[in-house]
Amino acid sequence: MKLASLNDGTRDGKLVVVSKDLTRCCAAGYIAPTLQYALDNWDRVAPKLAALYTDVEHQTVPCERFHEREAMSPLPRAFQWADGSAYINHVELVRKARGAEMPESFYHDPLMYQGGSDGFLGPREDIPLGDEAWGCDMEGEIAVVTDDVPMGVSKEQAADHIKLVMLVNDVSLRGLIPDELAKGFGFFQAKPASAFSPVAVTPDELGDAWSGSLVHLPLMVDLNGQAFGRPNAGQDATFSLAQLVAHAARTRRLSAGTIIGSGTVSNRGPGGDPGKPVSEGGAGYSCIAEIRMIEAIGNGEASTPFLSPGDTVRIEMKDKEGHSIFGAIEQTVVGA
Amino acid sequence: MKLASLNDGTRDGKLVVVSKDLTRCCAAGYIAPTLQYALDNWDRVAPKLAALYTDVEHQTVPCERFHEREAMSPLPRAFQWADGSAYINHVELVRKARGAEMPESFYHDPLMYQGGSDGFLGPREDIPLGDEAWGCDMEGEIAVVTDDVPMGVSKEQAADHIKLVMLVNDVSLRGLIPDELAKGFGFFQAKPASAFSPVAVTPDELGDAWSGSLVHLPLMVDLNGQAFGRPNAGQDATFSLAQLVAHAARTRRLSAGTIIGSGTVSNRGPGGDPGKPVSEGGAGYSCIAEIRMIEAIGNGEASTPFLSPGDTVRIEMKDKEGHSIFGAIEQTVVGA
Repeated sequence: MKLASLNDGTRDGKLVVVSKDLTRCCAAGYIAPTLQYALDNWDRVAPKLAALYTDVEHQTVPCERFHEREAMSPLPRAFQWADGSAYINHVELVRKARGAEMPESFYHDPLMYQGGSDGFLGPREDIPLGDEAWGCDMEGEIAVVTDDVPMGVSKEQAADHIKLVMLVNDVSLRGLIPDELAKGFGFFQAKPASAFSPVAVTPDELGDAWSGSLVHLPLMVDLNGQAFGRPNAGQDATFSLAQLVAHAARTRRLSAGTIIGSGTVSNRGPGGDPGKPVSEGGAGYSCIAEIRMIEAIGNGEASTPFLSPGDTVRIEMKDKEGHSIFGAIEQTVVGA
Repeated sequence: MKLASLNDGTRDGKLVVVSKDLTRCCAAGYIAPTLQYALDNWDRVAPKLAALYTDVEHQTVPCERFHEREAMSPLPRAFQWADGSAYINHVELVRKARGAEMPESFYHDPLMYQGGSDGFLGPREDIPLGDEAWGCDMEGEIAVVTDDVPMGVSKEQAADHIKLVMLVNDVSLRGLIPDELAKGFGFFQAKPASAFSPVAVTPDELGDAWSGSLVHLPLMVDLNGQAFGRPNAGQDATFSLAQLVAHAARTRRLSAGTIIGSGTVSNRGPGGDPGKPVSEGGAGYSCIAEIRMIEAIGNGEASTPFLSPGDTVRIEMKDKEGHSIFGAIEQTVVGA
């Protein structure tokens, strides 16, 4: 099934069930007023939402037109957002870019940071930027939402706790990262509010594309209307989303509504190299930091600028028939 | 006023107004069902809660007996928990202990990490510990709760957004910190669920002790019934709680219910030295890592062990007349 939270003026929005083709929706308030409520009571609520989804698909209940622009992030605010780094190509490139060493432990111990979750941007909401020198960048990622996860779960058990899948734009301020990471406490000011796709879907909606707790489809990232990245999220992942959930739960339980991110989706080139831009026939990149590093390696200096007011980022994923699965994140940077 | 969340089987508990002496309480559900709801609607709700507090004090409304053991953390789960490091003595000692350099920026740029907020332990709830080798430690701290804070506020403006004050036990797994920080993404597994005091109070409850966005009273930390720390939270703070709120809001707005922590309260000795244990007439320490460093400096090796199953930590603060302000955090470590 597909779920969204419509902006009704409340902080958590109004839960609706959305048709598979994203054209219609039906208010689910009589089952669960908000998505957080649904996740808090998932075992009881999910079958009822699934039944409503069937009715929406068969058009046996009154529906409204679904407009992506009216959707908030599926969880407009959440109790936890933790972002991993499953794609080693991204990690290698951004660390090279800031002159940081590749952690030896990366291949067996996932990188993960605790992100701010008190308020997410909507999928069509502007990105407020206080200062261009902060080096604003997008990061196109996959994220999953869990129910309650006990402390110490295995990765096999963790897979069963993944209830929903979404896309993310994990907004990053590259200019603030080196000083902040040098302090040793991780990201804080360098990671302002992220935005999620208009629709969250249950893993079964992905069919064969959901395998091994990864989404085996290209992530489409556009910058100012031009294709910027088309990396396949099923390729070159050192860790699956279930492994990232298990990592997060090693020393503590995770509460329902926890969002775990994949990190920036990134593919190597066919020869194991860092890949090529879309314009040169490659899979491209899901963030600007990567292409800047490629440019620096190839030409001696980075030429693609970070985001400025007026720049627009679009992140979407389509199924094999070309239909949008999650709706599109489409955000414009504005001066704050 | 004083507020608590009683355990009624729900995830967010039931909001009650508590008498100043912590003996009585009155359900506030008809004003706000939960503390998060109250914070979401603070301007409208706070005057009504304040009126009820007056009635509770005057015993003009029916009250129940208030039992600290029935209280959850005031926000049993929160949308944001970010912890600073206001007390430089603590930072110097724990960094020495793990051989990390003191960041040059510390005096003007606060250390702050994004903590997990999806589920806090109750003030009397056991601390589940998966492995003694993880080096479990307590950290006694002050925390404040904000309403909605706009991006880019000044520290003066930030002070007005502090609505509630609490105590915290920021549970830390010292054995996991070096490897985790070496990865560069900050704490994650090393910071399992924290616990907060049974009661949250508005700053006016602190009277003269609330000055410059700091609490000028000793924080009482006991380990297994013995006085372990009595540092004054108003002394030796490089940053006020308002400065920490402003730091958190530099690049993004903060949503209502954001909790900002002071970091471990720690006093220098009278000569600017790292101070002495309580047993030697000093102010002692609010975490074990500090006394271990003192022992290592003095005796060549640390002798106080980290927490083991059965150990009990108590954190409390009393006013000048000796009355408990927030109730006591009292937790026992158990094997998970």
